[in-house]
Amino acid sequence: MKRWLIIGVCGVCLVGMLGVATAQFARPEDAVRYRQSIMFLIGQHFGRIAAVVQGRETYEPQAVARNAELVATFAQLPWEAFMVPGTDSGTGLRATAFSDHEGFKAAAENSGAEIAKLAQVAAAGELDPIRAQFGVVGQSCKACHDKYRGR
Amino acid sequence: MKRWLIIGVCGVCLVGMLGVATAQFARPEDAVRYRQSIMFLIGQHFGRIAAVVQGRETYEPQAVARNAELVATFAQLPWEAFMVPGTDSGTGLRATAFSDHEGFKAAAENSGAEIAKLAQVAAAGELDPIRAQFGVVGQSCKACHDKYRGR
Repeated sequence: MKRWLIIGVCGVCLVGMLGVATAQFARPEDAVRYRQSIMFLIGQHFGRIAAVVQGRETYEPQAVARNAELVATFAQLPWEAFMVPGTDSGTGLRATAFSDHEGFKAAAENSGAEIAKLAQVAAAGELDPIRAQFGVVGQSCKACHDKYRGR
Repeated sequence: MKRWLIIGVCGVCLVGMLGVATAQFARPEDAVRYRQSIMFLIGQHFGRIAAVVQGRETYEPQAVARNAELVATFAQLPWEAFMVPGTDSGTGLRATAFSDHEGFKAAAENSGAEIAKLAQVAAAGELDPIRAQFGVVGQSCKACHDKYRGR
């Protein structure tokens, strides 16, 4: 439980850092590749949970818990890379992510919190609650993508 | 300590899985993008440690420990994606990674073990041992890249 508290607090702290300009990336294109890499990995590991939740794969509790833990770890990482100047065009990101900074931040924060909950639920090892929280996470992803992702 | 033991054991298990054909990826190109994403992220976070070790950035113990923990998490993940049939050409991977399966496996296992040690050392918060283990990890990366990466 303590570990999930730490993950949750870290998530909130990192999302809080969205307001701070970052010098973590040597070049703007590194920030783009960074966030695209993280988002791809989130998609892969979330997709492995989806296969179980949707009945295409057998439920193996440890594998689902591990995938959910990885998604929770990844979901703490990409946000600062979405705020690097010069990276708001030529990718799938809409410029509104920059102009509506507060809205983007709130959507990312909400999604991060729901993903942390999914990891908690998955660690408990019961499929029905996992399925329910998987749906909530999916909605939180969609809400952000609908508003801030152009393709 | 217990956590690092778990990470170490998971690393060994995952590397052990190199011998098993995997159906984790829907398409061969997903495996390629997966391993390239992970390797890019390892490079980014290892690079942040490099900047400190090489004196270009101030040593902030928590940040270095966090980066080393992330590298250790990432380093458990990509190996199965290097073993997916149909992904041994058209990328930076040499075909020898497939033909010399045991050698590739041993090099990946060695690197994973040294990275796990780096995370342990970084968590202790002393720069000199971090610098020393950073060098060992760098050598283990290079040993594998020299042999199995074509570019």
